[in-house]
Formats: sequence, C-alpha cells, structure tokens
Amino acid sequence: MARIGFVGLGNMGLPMARNLLKAGHEVTGFDLNAAQARALGDAGGQVATSAQEAAQAGDIVVTMLPSGREVSALYLGDDGLLAVAGPGTLFIDSSTIDVETARKVATAAQDAGQRMLDAPVSGGVGGAEAGTLTFMVGGADGDFTEARPLLEVMGKTIVHAGGPGNGQAAKICNNMILGISMIGVSEAFVLAEKLGLDHQKLFDISSTASGQCWSLTTYCPVPGPVPTSPANRDYQAGFTAAMMLKDLKLAQDAATHTDAATPLGALAAQTYGLFVGGGQGGVDFSGIIRFLRGHA
Amino acid sequence: MARIGFVGLGNMGLPMARNLLKAGHEVTGFDLNAAQARALGDAGGQVATSAQEAAQAGDIVVTMLPSGREVSALYLGDDGLLAVAGPGTLFIDSSTIDVETARKVATAAQDAGQRMLDAPVSGGVGGAEAGTLTFMVGGADGDFTEARPLLEVMGKTIVHAGGPGNGQAAKICNNMILGISMIGVSEAFVLAEKLGLDHQKLFDISSTASGQCWSLTTYCPVPGPVPTSPANRDYQAGFTAAMMLKDLKLAQDAATHTDAATPLGALAAQTYGLFVGGGQGGVDFSGIIRFLRGHA
Amino acid sequence: MARIGFVGLGNMGLPMARNLLKAGHEVTGFDLNAAQARALGDAGGQVATSAQEAAQAGDIVVTMLPSGREVSALYLGDDGLLAVAGPGTLFIDSSTIDVETARKVATAAQDAGQRMLDAPVSGGVGGAEAGTLTFMVGGADGDFTEARPLLEVMGKTIVHAGGPGNGQAAKICNNMILGISMIGVSEAFVLAEKLGLDHQKLFDISSTASGQCWSLTTYCPVPGPVPTSPANRDYQAGFTAAMMLKDLKLAQDAATHTDAATPLGALAAQTYGLFVGGGQGGVDFSGIIRFLRGHA
Amino acid sequence: MARIGFVGLGNMGLPMARNLLKAGHEVTGFDLNAAQARALGDAGGQVATSAQEAAQAGDIVVTMLPSGREVSALYLGDDGLLAVAGPGTLFIDSSTIDVETARKVATAAQDAGQRMLDAPVSGGVGGAEAGTLTFMVGGADGDFTEARPLLEVMGKTIVHAGGPGNGQAAKICNNMILGISMIGVSEAFVLAEKLGLDHQKLFDISSTASGQCWSLTTYCPVPGPVPTSPANRDYQAGFTAAMMLKDLKLAQDAATHTDAATPLGALAAQTYGLFVGGGQGGVDFSGIIRFLRGHA
Repeated sequence: MARIGFVGLGNMGLPMARNLLKAGHEVTGFDLNAAQARALGDAGGQVATSAQEAAQAGDIVVTMLPSGREVSALYLGDDGLLAVAGPGTLFIDSSTIDVETARKVATAAQDAGQRMLDAPVSGGVGGAEAGTLTFMVGGADGDFTEARPLLEVMGKTIVHAGGPGNGQAAKICNNMILGISMIGVSEAFVLAEKLGLDHQKLFDISSTASGQCWSLTTYCPVPGPVPTSPANRDYQAGFTAAMMLKDLKLAQDAATHTDAATPLGALAAQTYGLFVGGGQGGVDFSGIIRFLRGHA
Repeated sequence: MARIGFVGLGNMGLPMARNLLKAGHEVTGFDLNAAQARALGDAGGQVATSAQEAAQAGDIVVTMLPSGREVSALYLGDDGLLAVAGPGTLFIDSSTIDVETARKVATAAQDAGQRMLDAPVSGGVGGAEAGTLTFMVGGADGDFTEARPLLEVMGKTIVHAGGPGNGQAAKICNNMILGISMIGVSEAFVLAEKLGLDHQKLFDISSTASGQCWSLTTYCPVPGPVPTSPANRDYQAGFTAAMMLKDLKLAQDAATHTDAATPLGALAAQTYGLFVGGGQGGVDFSGIIRFLRGHA
Repeated sequence: MARIGFVGLGNMGLPMARNLLKAGHEVTGFDLNAAQARALGDAGGQVATSAQEAAQAGDIVVTMLPSGREVSALYLGDDGLLAVAGPGTLFIDSSTIDVETARKVATAAQDAGQRMLDAPVSGGVGGAEAGTLTFMVGGADGDFTEARPLLEVMGKTIVHAGGPGNGQAAKICNNMILGISMIGVSEAFVLAEKLGLDHQKLFDISSTASGQCWSLTTYCPVPGPVPTSPANRDYQAGFTAAMMLKDLKLAQDAATHTDAATPLGALAAQTYGLFVGGGQGGVDFSGIIRFLRGHA
Repeated sequence: MARIGFVGLGNMGLPMARNLLKAGHEVTGFDLNAAQARALGDAGGQVATSAQEAAQAGDIVVTMLPSGREVSALYLGDDGLLAVAGPGTLFIDSSTIDVETARKVATAAQDAGQRMLDAPVSGGVGGAEAGTLTFMVGGADGDFTEARPLLEVMGKTIVHAGGPGNGQAAKICNNMILGISMIGVSEAFVLAEKLGLDHQKLFDISSTASGQCWSLTTYCPVPGPVPTSPANRDYQAGFTAAMMLKDLKLAQDAATHTDAATPLGALAAQTYGLFVGGGQGGVDFSGIIRFLRGHA
C-alpha cells in the first residue's frame, strides 16, 4: 500500500481521496476548508495542518486545485511543495490548468529533484465518487507506469498523452471539440424546431449519419432521445456551463499564445461566456440550447 | 416494374438512373447535356427530347438538379412538370435545395393534383454509383411508402423525416452539425500540433471520450488515424468544400428566414466561404484544416 | 405641383406623405389599415380604396412596405401596380428590401414601360416627421433627376448610388458597418469597465484616435459622453434592435447569394438575433451593450 | 534639462530617444543590439553597457520593449531596474503589453519606492520619427504631470487614462474597435463589389452617414477615396497586420481574464490570425480586404 499526500479536498478531491482510502492506501490530506479536511478524517484518513505537512507524509502526492494560479503558488517558492517534500516524491497534479503553467511547474519539479505528472480528469463529481474518472496524463513513461495503479483506483480510463503538459493539452483539445459540437448540435435542434422537423426525427437521422457525435448521441441537449441526458432533468448539471467556459478559455489562452487559429473555439468560448454572464453558470452545459432559443 | 421519368443526369443523376435500370425498371431520361443523356441510352434507358417528355413517360418522376432556382423553373409555370405530367404522378425531387422552395413546389403539386416528395441524398458520387445513398424524405406517408422500394434501389438508408420540405430540413440540419464539427475537430488538431500533442494521441483520447464525432472517427482530417479518410490521399474529395459550403449556405438561408440563432453555423459558412473563395472549392471539405494552418 | 400616389402609410409612410402634402403636392394614398389612410385624409390627402387606385392617381408613385415579399406582391402580376398604372409612371420604392427583389422589380418595370427607383431611407420615424431622411437611390440618371425635388421634400441627404438595386445595396453595406461598429464599440466599453477604465476616458481617447466612429461619437452606447444618444434615456429607440437585425439579415442574404465573405457581418447578425430573440427587439440597437454585459 | 535613461532602442525606441536628444535632454541608452545603441551615440547620446547602467544614469527612465515577458524580466528581480535604480526614479514604460503585467510591475515599483507610468503609444515608426505619437498613460497624477513635458517631445497627443495599467487598457480597447471596424469596412466594400456598387459611391455615402469611421475616412482599405491610405501603395505598412494581431490578442487575453464578452473582438483576432498565419504579417492591416476577397 502507498503513502499518499492529498492537497485539495473539494467536491472532486474528497471523493477521489476516499476511493484511495477504500483501496487500502494511507492518505494524509489537507484543505483550506476545515470541514472538508475533517470529512477525510471521518473516512479514515489523516488530517494534516498544512499542505506542506500533507506533502511530506506521502511518497506520492496528489493535488486538486481550481486553477494555474493556485498550482503555481502551492508548488513553487521557498516553502512550495517541490522544496519541502522528500526527494524523488511523485507529484500528480489533477487540477485542470493552463498548459504553460503545467510545463513551468514540471520543469521546476525536475530542477528540484522531484517527479511530476499533470493528470487532469473528466467525468465530474459523479465520476469522482464512482471511481470512473478519465485521466489524461502528461509526463515521463516511468512516472506514468508508477502512477497508473493509483489512478486506476480513482478512474476507469487512464491515458498517457505524452510529455509534461500533454495531459492538459489533451483535455483542452478534447473539450474544445465538445463545446463546439454541443453548440452545433443545439443550433441544429433549434433550426429543426423552426422548420417543423421533430427532435426525434433529427436524432434518428443524424445519430446514424455524418452528424453523429457524443453531444448528440450520449448527451442530447433536448429531452427525449437520450433519457439519461441532463435535458431530461431541466438541465441540472452534470458538467456545468461555468466548467465548460473555464476549459474553453484555457483552450483560447493556449491558442493565443501558440498562434493556433481556432475561430469556432473562440466563438464557442464567447457563446458560453454570454450564457454564463447571463447568470446561467450553474446550469448543465447542454442548456446552451436555451440561450440560443432566447429564453435562458 | 415501374415506369420512371428521370430529369437531371449529371454526376449524381446518371448513376442513380443506371441503378434503376439495373433493377429492371423502365427509365426515360433527359438532360440538357446531350452526352449525359446518351450515356443513359447506352445503359439501356430511353432518351427524351425534353424534360416534359421524360416526365410524361413516367408514373414516377425523379429529378436531380443543382438548386432551388432550377427546381422552381422546371416544376412550375404553364409548361412545368406539374402541369404537363399525367394526373397523380409521384414526383421525387432528390435535389438539395432550400426548404422554402421545396415547400412551395410541394404545395403547387398538391394544387395541381400531383404528388411530391423531397428526397435529398447524402453519400456523394460514390454512394450514387454503389447504390448506397442515404435518402432524407419529406412528404405524405402513402407517397413515402410507395417510393421506398425505388429509393432502396438507389440507396441503403431511407428515412422519412416528416411532411413536405422535411427531407431538406433534415439534410441541412445534419450537414450543419457536420460542417461545424469538422472545423472543430480540425481546430483541435491544429492546437494539438502547436502544443506538441501527437495526432494519434488526440485521436485515441477523443475517439473514446466526449469529443467523439463522425468528423473525427470516420473522416479524420489528419492522415494516419483513419486510413480511409481523404486526409490520407491529399484531401482528394470525397465531399468537396464547395458542396459543404452550399449546404451551410442553405442552412443559413433557412435560419435567417425563420429567426433561428445559429452563431457557429454562420461562422462555419463564413470559414468555408473564405476557403472556397481562396480557390479550394474542389478540395475535400476536411481540407479546411489546411486553411486553419495558414497554407491552404 | 406633382400628382403623387402613395402606398403604405405606416409609421414611416404617413409622415413622409404628410410632408409631400405640406409642400403643396396632391397625394392620393392607400393603406390596408384604414385608420392610417384616414389620417392622410385628415391631413388633406385623398384616400384611395385600393393600392391600384392610388397608383393610377399619380404621375409619381411612392411605396413604403415592410419587405421584399410585399413589394413583389404589390408590383408584379396581372393586377400589380406596374400593370395598372399609366404608362411611364415613375415609381419610387422606399421600402428597405433585398437587392435581388429590387432588381427583379426594376426589370419588370422596364419591361412594362414604367420607370423605377429603389430609394430606401435612413433616419427613422423622427427623420420621416422632420423631413430629414437620407435617401439612397438606385436607378437611371434621368429618373433620379426627376425624383430628386420630391425626395428633398421628405429628406435632407439624397444620394444617387448607381443603377437599379444600388440604393438597397448602399443601405445594407452602410448598415452592416454600423451594426458591426456598434457591437465593437460596446465590447470596448464592456472591456474597459472590467479593466477599470472610465467610460469618459475611453471616449475622450478613441473619439480623437483610430477608434473613432459614428457609433462612438454620435450614438455612444453608454450614458454620459454624448448626451443625445439613446443610452441616456434607457435605450429607448431611436433605431430598434429589430430594425438593425432586419438590415443585417438583408446584408447576409446578399452576401450568401453573391459569395461575399463577411465574417463579422455574419456574427453581428447572429448577435442581434440572440438579443432580439431574447425579447429585446424594441430596444434601441445601442442597447446591445446590455446583452454583452449579460443582463439584457 | 532632464537626465534620461532609455532601454530598448529599436525601430520605435531609437527615434523616440533621438527626439529627446534634439530637445536638449541628456540621454543614456542601452539596447541588446549594439548597432542600435551606437546609432544613439552617433546622435549625441551616451551608450550604456547594460540596461541597469542606463537606468542608473537617469532621473527618468523610458523603456520600449516587445512584450510583457521582457518587461517583467527587465524590471523585476534582484538586479531588475526597480532594484538598481536610484530611489524615486520615474519609470515610463512605453511598451505595449498586457494590463496584468503592467499592473504587477507598477505595484512592484511602488513597493520598491519607485514611480511608474505605463505609456504605450500609437502612431508607428513614422509617428516616432516625427514626434507625433499618441501616448496613453496610466499612473499617478503627479507622475503624469512630471512626465508630460518629456512625452510632448516625443508625441503630439498625451492622454492620462487613469491609474496604473490604464494606459494599456485604453490602447487595447481603442485598437480592438479599430481592428473590428477595419474588417467591417472591408467586408462592406467586398459586398459592394459583388453587388456592383462603386467603391467611391459607398465611400461618399458612408463617410457622411452612420457607417462613418476612421477605418473608412482616414485609412480607407480600397485605393481611391483616401489618397494617403496604404491601399494606394499596395498595402505597404503603415501599421502591419502582425501588429494589429498582437494588440487584438492582448485584448482577448484581458477579456478572457476579466470575463468580458467580446464576440466580435474574438473573431477579429481570429481573422487577423488566419491572415498573418497565411504569411501576410508584414502587410498593412488594411490589407485584410484581400484575405476577405480570397486572394491575399
């Protein structure tokens, strides 16, 4: 069994840490929110009084934070995790952050004699609880091999996307396709409505034709065709519009800084920005169809 | 065996008519281009000297024309097909045209005591030759039932999308999703390139995740992951960018006239417009990735 | 003094006709809405019982209708104005319609031995009442010269934009710039707000720099810098968002049918479409800034 | 006469520094490119062997660098300018950089007991040589007052936009309007061409109507109407497309990080990105009209 430090016990981090405990690992966790930390204690974990203490208690350290700013602040500097942890610690950062920061921290880790994987997830709170997350991992082969058994405790699909930062790169590329196709499918349904074409008819046709996509066949933005999709429960998330916006902005940041042309990605980010700006950030991201209809 | 009139024996119409002949039907065809008409004769069909003559020779009349303008001109007016054909003729218009014209002609057909289906296809010249087209059909149930056996001679998937015009509506809604998702997938590959993420890695991840779509998994715009996709043969069409642009413009026309909001559909039409305007109309529509990279 | 027929006595047409009366012309008018027609009578005009009767009463006939559909219906056909009016009548269509229809009707006029100008206006109801409209006119030189004195009764700026349809072309090109620049200026103010830059500071800088435009310096979308702009009266129109949307759609129709690339024009149309679709069609078009802020 | 340090003697910096010399000031300059530094010496300036030495030689220090990365590297850290310069030095950073970095450096300056203005310019190399630049300045009132006489040596229009970072904010807001309106005007000309409306006619109409903007009336993207515009010399810059793209990206960065909705700004950035990505970065930014026409 592994000795694991865990920093960031929020909606995602706590159930992930619990799954590690259930699998028999020793987990020492920390969160700025004491109630979340206590919940780890209730589940049989150790509660550290600081992130540094949690990191020092693990041979492997998992972090789950809101953005690149927090990741930089936690890892770097004189009392950053890279400085205080035991030499050769394997860090797994499961935060979804910008590629640039992920690579900067990975380089700093190497300079400090530490090992680092970026391993953002998809699958949401439900996937975190069920242990069915997808991990997209960037970093060295050996580190990936070592981390894999632990990741398999928390997730179902574990993919090695290449060197440092490539886990983040894979996630934003995938989610940019997702955001674009969800708006595209929603536009098609809105146009179908205006033209008097039934939702189910369009679904039947496109789901077996060249318009087929996950946004249509697994997560259909109108109620009916796919009974499990959030559209059937009034767009209760699921994966919120605010989360989609965050990922689309990360994609735009990366595109801007690398001179990649992404016109639809840019417009998808703007469209979700207008939706979230209108107060709908907590709605499932498939609820964008309501924005297109004019009554969000 | 049915007596069929066929007007419009171009790249699509001719092989469709030939398949009807092969199945044992009697086909009388017309095309403004005499060479195309003769080719039908060579295949065992009758060659008419006018569209009207072809229409009068059939109990069922199939038309395959470039746009709504030609369809209006052919069907309507004093010597239009609706006026000169025998009463109760079943017309099947397989042209891809705007919904508004399709419905206008269908109404005129009813007024004239004729029967009418709009039945645009997808599958391209290859599908027309192989008899594997998809037909999206709008019109009355009884007419659809009567036409189906004939359509099955020319195609593999035959879908009844609802009343008059709904065949056209289904096609443009589907192809709008297709055009949007193809650009979206291409943007993701371009961003991946800039970030140092391998094509194959992104494919492996997204093809089994929420970014999955036909544009990725069946028609992948980069060479390698899907050996049959046009990217592997230097973007030789396939389905040309000019054809995609035509369909995206039909979708925009419909959206404009029905007040449907389709921001990504509009931008997809503009993006293909710039690509085709730059002289790339004959390239496969997945070649849009070269436009995004800046070297079309 | 001229004998003038006037068809279409709505919010715009009635004050225009009244100005003709005031200038001493003889006006015979018609409107489907009897109350509007009576209002012309109250102002000293003749009330016709049909559009045809109004047209026959004039040597010059002005029409002011909502869209190309109505213009086609009124002018063309066996009892259309072109057929029933006296030979050589000079028609002035001041409706804002699509270029294609304007040219179709102009050709029909010539075929019928009539004369035709397309002469859409800008300046709104206020300009119609004050006689300060701008007329953008397409048609033959001689006809323009003949019409000019009458147009000067109703407007202040009269421009000859070229042959048939060019009046419409000029209007949609101008208003496409206007719609784009209004959104652009609004985006700049929204960004300035987020960055802590005062409205007035941005105004002072851009109004004398390369960002200067009519949308900023004459019709500023935030209250303060330009006291007369609708922003200072809670975006009371002025020129409604619905009217702007109509013009942007006409521009998109023209662009689609002539293969002109207009990416920002397309997105401007979509943006106003979402705003109007959200129930804000009656608001001044500068109110789009509220949509961008997320609280329309 | 003031003692001035000047760091960054490139295409912009060198003529700016020369104008300070001409006005009688004592200038000690540094550039990584020795030839540029020598050119300052030839003009009567002192050549420093490091940026630090240049900074220590001035009571006022002007810096002109390519991006926020260089500005951070130069100003911050143990041997950064803020650390090594004499206490109370007045720094004027005329680089065009992101607002966030500008504010971070301004805060660091205050912490270090220094004074700081961000003062990006517009007007290009021509304006730098002629001393007619526009300066948009952010920082404290007193510092602005003190800097103004120097800025007036290098520029013609000097505007105080507010506190730290507001000079940068003003520049990107203004240039976002500019980029959007230039594309909008270009689209209108392209549409006019397709509709058979003369360039000059559209210019005459819109330059006195609601489509009026600097991009049309001062910098017209078609040859003819405005003889001094780059369109008349085959789009020789002027202000290059690459420079416009840089500013539009800064605006998008700011919008992304502050949750400002800027759909047209985003699409303008993408459009210039495609143009520059196609190898046209050195062309004047009004050359975007050639991209829209499909033959850049």
